[in-house]
Amino acid sequence: MEKLAVAVVGATGLAGQQLLAALADHPWFRIARVAASGRSAGKTLREALADPTGAFCGYAGGALAPELAALPVEEAASMPTSGLACVFSAVESDAARQLEPVYARDVPVVSTASAFRYEPDVPLLIPPVNSGHAALLDVQRRRRGWKGYVTPIPNCTTTGLAVVLAPLAEAFGLRSVVMTSMQACSGAGRSPGVAALDIVDNVIPFIPGEEEKVQREVGKILGRLEGEAIVPHLARVSATCTRVAVLEGHTETVFAGLGRAASLDEVRVALARFGQGGPASSLPSAPARWIEVHDDPYRPQPRLDREAGGGMTTTVGRLREDAVLENGIKLVLVSHNTKAGAARGAVLVAEVLRTRGLLG
Amino acid sequence: MEKLAVAVVGATGLAGQQLLAALADHPWFRIARVAASGRSAGKTLREALADPTGAFCGYAGGALAPELAALPVEEAASMPTSGLACVFSAVESDAARQLEPVYARDVPVVSTASAFRYEPDVPLLIPPVNSGHAALLDVQRRRRGWKGYVTPIPNCTTTGLAVVLAPLAEAFGLRSVVMTSMQACSGAGRSPGVAALDIVDNVIPFIPGEEEKVQREVGKILGRLEGEAIVPHLARVSATCTRVAVLEGHTETVFAGLGRAASLDEVRVALARFGQGGPASSLPSAPARWIEVHDDPYRPQPRLDREAGGGMTTTVGRLREDAVLENGIKLVLVSHNTKAGAARGAVLVAEVLRTRGLLG
Amino acid sequence: MEKLAVAVVGATGLAGQQLLAALADHPWFRIARVAASGRSAGKTLREALADPTGAFCGYAGGALAPELAALPVEEAASMPTSGLACVFSAVESDAARQLEPVYARDVPVVSTASAFRYEPDVPLLIPPVNSGHAALLDVQRRRRGWKGYVTPIPNCTTTGLAVVLAPLAEAFGLRSVVMTSMQACSGAGRSPGVAALDIVDNVIPFIPGEEEKVQREVGKILGRLEGEAIVPHLARVSATCTRVAVLEGHTETVFAGLGRAASLDEVRVALARFGQGGPASSLPSAPARWIEVHDDPYRPQPRLDREAGGGMTTTVGRLREDAVLENGIKLVLVSHNTKAGAARGAVLVAEVLRTRGLLG
Amino acid sequence: MEKLAVAVVGATGLAGQQLLAALADHPWFRIARVAASGRSAGKTLREALADPTGAFCGYAGGALAPELAALPVEEAASMPTSGLACVFSAVESDAARQLEPVYARDVPVVSTASAFRYEPDVPLLIPPVNSGHAALLDVQRRRRGWKGYVTPIPNCTTTGLAVVLAPLAEAFGLRSVVMTSMQACSGAGRSPGVAALDIVDNVIPFIPGEEEKVQREVGKILGRLEGEAIVPHLARVSATCTRVAVLEGHTETVFAGLGRAASLDEVRVALARFGQGGPASSLPSAPARWIEVHDDPYRPQPRLDREAGGGMTTTVGRLREDAVLENGIKLVLVSHNTKAGAARGAVLVAEVLRTRGLLG
Repeated sequence: MEKLAVAVVGATGLAGQQLLAALADHPWFRIARVAASGRSAGKTLREALADPTGAFCGYAGGALAPELAALPVEEAASMPTSGLACVFSAVESDAARQLEPVYARDVPVVSTASAFRYEPDVPLLIPPVNSGHAALLDVQRRRRGWKGYVTPIPNCTTTGLAVVLAPLAEAFGLRSVVMTSMQACSGAGRSPGVAALDIVDNVIPFIPGEEEKVQREVGKILGRLEGEAIVPHLARVSATCTRVAVLEGHTETVFAGLGRAASLDEVRVALARFGQGGPASSLPSAPARWIEVHDDPYRPQPRLDREAGGGMTTTVGRLREDAVLENGIKLVLVSHNTKAGAARGAVLVAEVLRTRGLLG
Repeated sequence: MEKLAVAVVGATGLAGQQLLAALADHPWFRIARVAASGRSAGKTLREALADPTGAFCGYAGGALAPELAALPVEEAASMPTSGLACVFSAVESDAARQLEPVYARDVPVVSTASAFRYEPDVPLLIPPVNSGHAALLDVQRRRRGWKGYVTPIPNCTTTGLAVVLAPLAEAFGLRSVVMTSMQACSGAGRSPGVAALDIVDNVIPFIPGEEEKVQREVGKILGRLEGEAIVPHLARVSATCTRVAVLEGHTETVFAGLGRAASLDEVRVALARFGQGGPASSLPSAPARWIEVHDDPYRPQPRLDREAGGGMTTTVGRLREDAVLENGIKLVLVSHNTKAGAARGAVLVAEVLRTRGLLG
Repeated sequence: MEKLAVAVVGATGLAGQQLLAALADHPWFRIARVAASGRSAGKTLREALADPTGAFCGYAGGALAPELAALPVEEAASMPTSGLACVFSAVESDAARQLEPVYARDVPVVSTASAFRYEPDVPLLIPPVNSGHAALLDVQRRRRGWKGYVTPIPNCTTTGLAVVLAPLAEAFGLRSVVMTSMQACSGAGRSPGVAALDIVDNVIPFIPGEEEKVQREVGKILGRLEGEAIVPHLARVSATCTRVAVLEGHTETVFAGLGRAASLDEVRVALARFGQGGPASSLPSAPARWIEVHDDPYRPQPRLDREAGGGMTTTVGRLREDAVLENGIKLVLVSHNTKAGAARGAVLVAEVLRTRGLLG
Repeated sequence: MEKLAVAVVGATGLAGQQLLAALADHPWFRIARVAASGRSAGKTLREALADPTGAFCGYAGGALAPELAALPVEEAASMPTSGLACVFSAVESDAARQLEPVYARDVPVVSTASAFRYEPDVPLLIPPVNSGHAALLDVQRRRRGWKGYVTPIPNCTTTGLAVVLAPLAEAFGLRSVVMTSMQACSGAGRSPGVAALDIVDNVIPFIPGEEEKVQREVGKILGRLEGEAIVPHLARVSATCTRVAVLEGHTETVFAGLGRAASLDEVRVALARFGQGGPASSLPSAPARWIEVHDDPYRPQPRLDREAGGGMTTTVGRLREDAVLENGIKLVLVSHNTKAGAARGAVLVAEVLRTRGLLG
């Protein structure tokens, strides 16, 4: 099979670099174009990633393949889309609002930006959770008169939470969720990103907009597609989002009130079996398990567990009963914010879209 | 006024060193004796605090006053108590169970250990919250036939939480609390303490016994003394306790369900006014405010706020409505775990006991 | 005595905030004007220091005095200098090259910027080391036709090194210096500063321009004023400068080849006595000791020692013989980079200038 | 080829766990026995590595293969050696002095302990540097009347330094070395290891015995085997060893005085070519390059470079001229302390011994 040509827009930022890494040696996709803002346009990708200002590069790790390094960085606003099966967009939200509809007139756009997440004809796909919501993309195409569409992935803090809540909602019902996140610094990108002066020996108790995103996105992701709209799940969600001195991997404490009483064993089984043998499990970026459940009370830890399943497994531990919420259970999860929650999560969405005939 | 003679037992450990610092230049107390386990006994305090094994000392900061440095470290099991107004105990729980009753036959013992916290004739005093519980110490004396008594302070993670819940319970009633802690490394002491290998670029999701302590202690502290027993407060409390790469200062996210609806302004006022002008406010270790409320959403941060009020102020921020708990509000607090939550908190208890005629 | 009016330019940056803190309650100086780049001009200082973009402020610690908070931030390029005894400049080097000569036409400028450090009529004052070089400022005035002058302080990494080398050079002669720095993150400021992603679990082996500055400045500081020029000291200096995950306090390993053989005891005495009773020792910002020598091999540590002497003492330890350099000794030093090495160091220079009749 | 049976002694410590990881799936060796101190004896390896005391395990990463996990942990003092081709010893130095000679009566012992490093009939092998020194092992056997021998690897801080100095000494001669290390926390093991309280926001300027080891070992490693003894290299070496908040990977700044003047290009080429095509390069644990030279001044960084070549490549950067030492050059290196400098370095030694007919 010939690989499908894709583009990475915002290729020089941290999220974009993660996309380059996630697409390296991909069995279905090859990077045919890279684009960024005007400042980088005209350079080769190698030149654009080298740092002229004294900042450090190379964060996303790995060496650039020579043919990728030699690609010219195009101006994002004028990048042609002909011949592309898909555009991966990793630009900031403001840029996304401008650029993504332009690409979507012609080709599908899978985006890490939040710009379109909350529009009614836009699904928030996490393939093991809600692949069926992809049907909404045809609605989007038709309503907007586009050949393509925009399909953003959720916020990185939402992803691990939704993966863990999905089997609970399905098996037991879900009424309420209280979540506290301890988020990694990479989630803030690099410019400005989190300053060492703010995070060494410290916790930052606020991430602008994050709690609202999580609270809103969980309902949509776990919702039901009815006709041409998603009916949000009714579980109430309350979050406090903080930043800690961790490089990669978001840790979240979750207190969940279930729809019916369930033993911890039932919960453990529901989590561990989630998505096993489902259609998403055969995608190239799928991990062996979507959820790994630990009995060791010292797990999950972001440093030890973030790379589980190539960064695509959500690791859960500290399963306990909760005395506050009705039918309450509590747990701790770790999810890789720039892999499952960003670059590799976006690639997984493109994979599922291809299997459903929505790509290329 | 002549200062009252006190002893510090466990003086060579991290908590003991913090007690030495908290008692330096105290207007009411002077350290007359220091004691530790047999290994240190016979040395001067200066020698015992110097490190023969390659570990690093000096953590608690400050220079030892010469007369303190020259004190002989006595064997804890055989330290005389005559002439002492009070023993401050900072030993491990197992040692506390052996040693503290021996001292208490003769003199009051204020302890940072958990050994006696849950016994029915033992109060858990936080002076601005429940000084009246000190009346239980007479019951303890009488029942046990001791001249003194044992009065432990709460777990360091409980303290800031109880200080914040107390005005909420009083003003609005309190039904439920969901708390996640991000605790500092100093809470684990130094031997073994938290290893750098476990906490750099990491979060540890478990602290043995901590959640149970918090859940149990809050009810007792906020309870009502009736006759000769404390009737625990009925609020349900559910906690997840974690460790982060912070040196000092516990950060806690709190979601609280109140007894009646209250606006955020009402809550802010109740918190900010807590204890103002109360009897505990004139104690030597009392801060200008027991609770400081920030509007800046980036506060509280442990590095910036832990030293507020000499480490005795609990700093609160991010006050928001909560959608999950009935009449729910949420906030973030920072409390200094080795000052308000340990050494200085113990000294404050001794101060309030003296004003109530229970000391010396 | 009425306090002298001074201005702080670049008041909203990290270095400027440190200057505000260093001048708070100063016995000789009062801040009469504050200035910054156009973006902040027109706001009050309180407004300018509050953060409109989601970054965190308050780093320099301490609360702004109300009268300071209410000062208007003036546009640096048009700030009047009449009535000022001195301008403290904490702007970037490019801005310094433009602004400082304008101010210096009328008033003395004490600067933390490097722009003028290497000009022949400009001394690099460290008061306990080379106060006599201040005589060069009259030369500068005369040559440039200014009423004031520009006197920059050295690079923050140079300061502690020069303080330690000065007594060695004086007592024994100094032929060669090999230095490796492990520098704190605050030295890089905040925008961009050092990103958490670059420094957590890491060492950055390069700080642009830093090694050249150190190598060049040491010779000038230790040099001899002859007629109207400084003859640099001839010691060869070789440095490697790195960045580590420390908030404040530069650590430097120093290997020094002396002019004659000296025992470690002789070296210890020369260091410990440095500047004792000298004229700089009676300045308001002078610490009790310019150099503190530790025998404990685990000292100095930046976290434990950076605040020694209010951040103005250089702490030395690990004094050993060195087998490579002729008459070699080696040691480790810690110096506070934003206090002795920046804000408080600049204030100390202004203090010494005043005692020499060069200010106001 | 049937794999050779080997034992790992001290298998439950941090270094031992690294050995288990380094030997997993090794093409030549299989772990037939594991041993530890009495406390672990009698458990399976899985049980012994699980943590009964609240410390955290799993540091060395990777899952234990089932057949390895089921191995009984034997008492080190009584472990039989029959059938073993080699014992890998990762015990503390005191235990090594007792145990290693017992094993060596029968079988070769490759050790990470320092106990025997400085004895005249003991080489310090780094295969790309001094494989020829292995001939000394026959001398050792004969003198001590052992069938086996003890061959320790160097200190982890020595290894990267010696690898970099070897090509310099060979190509240009080497007269003097001034080195400052910034060492990772894993080098101190886990019990006690480095406490978070000592290293967060800090540098520790002292590691007991480390500098003496480095200074002594470099001479032996670079020395010449003459007859039955190694004549040490005469280069003078002076080191200052410090600890920083890095998990893995020692960073060292090196100032080297060469035997003759050499351009930076000559030095770069000598380093980059080191060992290429040599006999050690075909060993299973050999990396593609022993030394990787970077032109990017921001490299090497321990977090980015420690895993180069599977942790077996020494990464060099910041090559510059040095003004102090005669024919001086300076550079920065990163070397993986628990891979090249410990577990994988020991396995590499066993590999070279096998190719020289000294094993099994």
